Amino acid sequence: MEVKLRDRPITALFDPASVAVVGASDDTRKWGNWLAQGALRGEAHRPAYLVNQRAATVLGRAAYATLHDLPEAPELVVIAVPGPAIAPTVEAALEVGARALVVISAGAGGSQGGEHDAALARRVSDAGAVLLGPNCLGVLDSGRRLELIPNPLPAGAIGLISQSGNLALELGLMAAPQGLGFSRFASLGNQADIGATELVDAFAAHDATEVIAVYIEDFRDGRGFARAAARAVAAGTPVIALAIDGSGAGARAVQSHTGALASDGAAIDAAFAAAGVLRVRTPRELVDAAQALLRAPASRGRRVAVLGDGGGHVSIAAAVVAQAGLTVPQLSEAAMAPLRDTLPAAAGVSNPIDLAGAAERDVHVFDRIARDLLGGSEIDAVLVTGYFGGYAEYGPENAADELRTAELMGAAVTATGRPLIAQTMYPQGPAAHALRRSGVPVYESVEQGAGALAVLARRGTWQPQAIPALPPPEPAVPATGDSYLAARALLAEAGIGFVAHHEVTGVEPAVDAASQMGYPVVLKALGETHKSDAGGVVLNLADEGQLRAAWAQVHAALSPERCTVERMASLGDGIELLIGARWDPRFGPVVLAGSGGLYAEILRDTAVRLAPVSEADAEAMLRTLRIAPLLTGARGRPSLDIAAAGAALAALSRVAAGHPELAELEINPLLVTRTEAIALDARFIPAEPHPATPPGWE
Amino acid sequence: MEVKLRDRPITALFDPASVAVVGASDDTRKWGNWLAQGALRGEAHRPAYLVNQRAATVLGRAAYATLHDLPEAPELVVIAVPGPAIAPTVEAALEVGARALVVISAGAGGSQGGEHDAALARRVSDAGAVLLGPNCLGVLDSGRRLELIPNPLPAGAIGLISQSGNLALELGLMAAPQGLGFSRFASLGNQADIGATELVDAFAAHDATEVIAVYIEDFRDGRGFARAAARAVAAGTPVIALAIDGSGAGARAVQSHTGALASDGAAIDAAFAAAGVLRVRTPRELVDAAQALLRAPASRGRRVAVLGDGGGHVSIAAAVVAQAGLTVPQLSEAAMAPLRDTLPAAAGVSNPIDLAGAAERDVHVFDRIARDLLGGSEIDAVLVTGYFGGYAEYGPENAADELRTAELMGAAVTATGRPLIAQTMYPQGPAAHALRRSGVPVYESVEQGAGALAVLARRGTWQPQAIPALPPPEPAVPATGDSYLAARALLAEAGIGFVAHHEVTGVEPAVDAASQMGYPVVLKALGETHKSDAGGVVLNLADEGQLRAAWAQVHAALSPERCTVERMASLGDGIELLIGARWDPRFGPVVLAGSGGLYAEILRDTAVRLAPVSEADAEAMLRTLRIAPLLTGARGRPSLDIAAAGAALAALSRVAAGHPELAELEINPLLVTRTEAIALDARFIPAEPHPATPPGWE
Repeated sequence: MEVKLRDRPITALFDPASVAVVGASDDTRKWGNWLAQGALRGEAHRPAYLVNQRAATVLGRAAYATLHDLPEAPELVVIAVPGPAIAPTVEAALEVGARALVVISAGAGGSQGGEHDAALARRVSDAGAVLLGPNCLGVLDSGRRLELIPNPLPAGAIGLISQSGNLALELGLMAAPQGLGFSRFASLGNQADIGATELVDAFAAHDATEVIAVYIEDFRDGRGFARAAARAVAAGTPVIALAIDGSGAGARAVQSHTGALASDGAAIDAAFAAAGVLRVRTPRELVDAAQALLRAPASRGRRVAVLGDGGGHVSIAAAVVAQAGLTVPQLSEAAMAPLRDTLPAAAGVSNPIDLAGAAERDVHVFDRIARDLLGGSEIDAVLVTGYFGGYAEYGPENAADELRTAELMGAAVTATGRPLIAQTMYPQGPAAHALRRSGVPVYESVEQGAGALAVLARRGTWQPQAIPALPPPEPAVPATGDSYLAARALLAEAGIGFVAHHEVTGVEPAVDAASQMGYPVVLKALGETHKSDAGGVVLNLADEGQLRAAWAQVHAALSPERCTVERMASLGDGIELLIGARWDPRFGPVVLAGSGGLYAEILRDTAVRLAPVSEADAEAMLRTLRIAPLLTGARGRPSLDIAAAGAALAALSRVAAGHPELAELEINPLLVTRTEAIALDARFIPAEPHPATPPGWE
Repeated sequence: MEVKLRDRPITALFDPASVAVVGASDDTRKWGNWLAQGALRGEAHRPAYLVNQRAATVLGRAAYATLHDLPEAPELVVIAVPGPAIAPTVEAALEVGARALVVISAGAGGSQGGEHDAALARRVSDAGAVLLGPNCLGVLDSGRRLELIPNPLPAGAIGLISQSGNLALELGLMAAPQGLGFSRFASLGNQADIGATELVDAFAAHDATEVIAVYIEDFRDGRGFARAAARAVAAGTPVIALAIDGSGAGARAVQSHTGALASDGAAIDAAFAAAGVLRVRTPRELVDAAQALLRAPASRGRRVAVLGDGGGHVSIAAAVVAQAGLTVPQLSEAAMAPLRDTLPAAAGVSNPIDLAGAAERDVHVFDRIARDLLGGSEIDAVLVTGYFGGYAEYGPENAADELRTAELMGAAVTATGRPLIAQTMYPQGPAAHALRRSGVPVYESVEQGAGALAVLARRGTWQPQAIPALPPPEPAVPATGDSYLAARALLAEAGIGFVAHHEVTGVEPAVDAASQMGYPVVLKALGETHKSDAGGVVLNLADEGQLRAAWAQVHAALSPERCTVERMASLGDGIELLIGARWDPRFGPVVLAGSGGLYAEILRDTAVRLAPVSEADAEAMLRTLRIAPLLTGARGRPSLDIAAAGAALAALSRVAAGHPELAELEINPLLVTRTEAIALDARFIPAEPHPATPPGWE
């Protein structure tokens, strides 16, 4: 099967019929040397031609002065020449008929690429070829023995897409002792032509790639990346991504609560959650997660049995497992009875299970108990922790028994489809390797083991979410110093209820308005000064006297041209939410819900998703908040109108998605009562400058 | 120097003049074999006598039938005989003059010990000797070549006290590759005589022990343990403890918010925070923390410079460092200028610092930059991350340069007294070992490196707290079904202000009381039914009609014998806190402050300390809450009377500390306004059964 990248062939990049290295060198300190060595390692599979302007031979082979001198057209050309020579070399490669180019050196645009890169990419694309780089460190396909990279990497089932070379090297060093390695590796470089999104699609279609791992700094079209990842996940290939929160966060001027809370990192989280991408923070976490996903079945729930020899180990493991968001449920009497019958009196049988020395006499207690637990209905996964792997020290017979026990634990996993994870003090011993071969991920520390269980539970319980398409942009809202009334009009038109208000310019109309709507009322100053922090909002005015006093005070302090008088909503049994949206430069609009009012930024209790969201998804977001019990009626409280709150959140998300010119849009607070959700204040922050919708967004 | 344990000699336990192993055996599957082998390894330092009832020789040595047959009195006797033989063997050992006993086997009391253990301990103590165990796995003093343990452990500067043998073994396996090991190890077993507290004192006085590490399940006198740890820390020996939250948490019936929030684990945290003990969750964290504390100076602040070769590594490291609670501040122009001059244009110079390949040409950029940063005033610590350790691959000259660079980085640490931590892809390479030798802790993963920096910052910025003494118990408060009025009286007497109230038995007196104090009022039903969840509290009654209606409703539902009518406090600008205390069975009274009212258990925003606390400490607790900005007047809010809130918290803590018969004591909510802190409700939960103050508490 030939996978197409925007209708261009990618086979040439990962399984070319022939390879040429331009800039091949005998100098062992040069990239042209390392890559030439790599090309020659694959010679049994395809011709490798070394090109060097001056040298007659390189690495003992005849070298060619130019690409035009080659006996055949090289399907893939690796370019490791100084920056200024890149463009003519690309030109020569296309002339002789190359279909894929890997450009190692940074071009004239340096690490930023810019217009130089774009021109290069257009030239390659027009010729029907593909380009990886510039400024990348090569490409690997282990199955096809294509090793155009500076250092060897271990072979395995991980497809790695990375924007950092040293990181790929570190991942290789961490993966190898676990018996893991790479099916493919593509170094992203400047992504002038082929980027992470196309590579995810290509890797998902690659049979030998069982897990896709991505280290990415520059998402380009973030939603497009998320869609590609979602396709891979849906087709059965998990995607793990190591992504750093945008450095833009510091530079970005945050003006609303939403801006502060729906951070660049939160946008990445929202996109990854929708796509089913597992986000990790470090190379260690990436390799640990890959091991879990490659070796073990997903976990259908969060109930873990902890099994070990010694109260210390199982107690620590149970605590760490609980901290990882899983549960260590007490076993039923029926499940405990056989344990009581076979284990010593000092054993712990309720979960965690402490064998209390029983395995020293018969190590097969491990596989028998594991099989019973995995085959039963009370737990979803087993964690074996501590000493297992050390029983071999009692003698050769024990060693053989221990290996057999490891195999039987693996067999129990295969038979039940439930995962077993092992953490052992002897992670490089024979029993550990037997576990790995048998389908049991093995970790050195218990926190890694608990993390692996969490990964498997997350994969097993993940519910796919839509990556929402964006509506066509609505007519832009003009920027304004005080966005309250404009935001209010926009959101009210979308169906969100606001508290009654009257716009007034003098105190007498204010008093008239108040007596018409009934006290207590709120007075808000309009204009630049519309900020409760600055004293521009006075709440809970109980009568005309208080209103007049507030009017005088506000006008003395702020001299607003206009004000509104509004009905004072009664909190009663209700609670205040914050709902808002922000346009992220990479992921587009994201929508946020959180605790509102006073508590908004203090509690940072928020849910964030890609916008727009449906009413049902919006309500689901609200149910993930820590304050959700206050909405749903816990502890004798009345249940509030969460459906109305969800509808307001969904409506706001649709408005935001139609208005890329609004960088931030916010209702704070949204008062949710037993019978309604009503907005008490709103604002937007105009984008500066007005953004264009990034290409590629559907 | 002879260290005394409650006036008994401990030298006999760690550096005895002679050793006897009772139960010594040729069977390599028996404890008596392993311990005899260990005893013989120390023979160059002291005679080792093997005792076996039946065998004439053990391990090729003449064996003695009984302790009475030995040619001299053994100063230390290790007892590895079946349970029933323990007591007579102890008797024999004391008869021949032994001063220290290590009992490996569990006695008649099993792992629980109980009265059998207590009798054994009294007998030993009366004879002026000391006993470790029963049910322990031995004792080690590396410097004295005393190796009475089943498996060898690496030698080093960590003094280990552990209640789990397998855990000690795992710690040894993790420590050795880091070049770390143990000065002493004592296995706690049942702590019949010598316990963790005495051992901490003994280890603190032991010159070769530079860090004390504790794995503990059973604290006994928790405050005594905390005091011993605080003495060790104050005398310059850090204490690291791995402790599991009490399993009692599940069994304990939690009846108040305070009971739920001031958990067993929170009590441990409070005691450890006061003592300066670093709490860890896992063996890996313990070894990582020990390495940091042993090799590096403490950090005087939280500002970290991240230094590496490659944007990926430094970006990831900076993010992980920030997540560990440290900062990665931007460098000043003055600090960046020399970096700009020496590094390539693509380098990152503002922090994190990306060398962008500069170290490939001259690896000494690492030590030069590290020296400048550590010697300057802008950062407190440096994290070197990623590829360092790999430059040796470029050739032998590079290898020598890299080793020298490692030494110079260590020299910069020595010269400046500021720590440098390294994370490297090559943690077992020559450069990594050179770093370790030079005073630089080295870690394999960046999360470990960031954790080490957090440990050093915590140690460098730790402020000692008093471990409070307990006041003499006050006259016990009688248990009652509805503790509101009793709690109110007790706390009011201690100076805590309560909202005005009248106790009433009929609706007319209620109406009278309300009109006297002025509407709005609150109606509270007294008795078992005093619970807002059950409808026994009706707030905000605006007039007589509402009061009468509430009275009818409450009496129809709950038929209370008595009620109170209380003034309805106005929340206004104020906020509601929860303050409470709980008697922990191991650590005594702990006091808690947190978000009150609706949010108490949902937000779990709490501060917990050992009680009683001073007014100043109480206020400091409040300032650590996430909601502290609402108390201190952030974002244009008025500042509230935090001093009054602190005074109420301190008063409640004193009351709790004087009343061990009150398992839980709570004010919820405590309304804090601009001018006062006033209690709106209170309760206590009687202990069941009434506890005795544990022995040893001052």
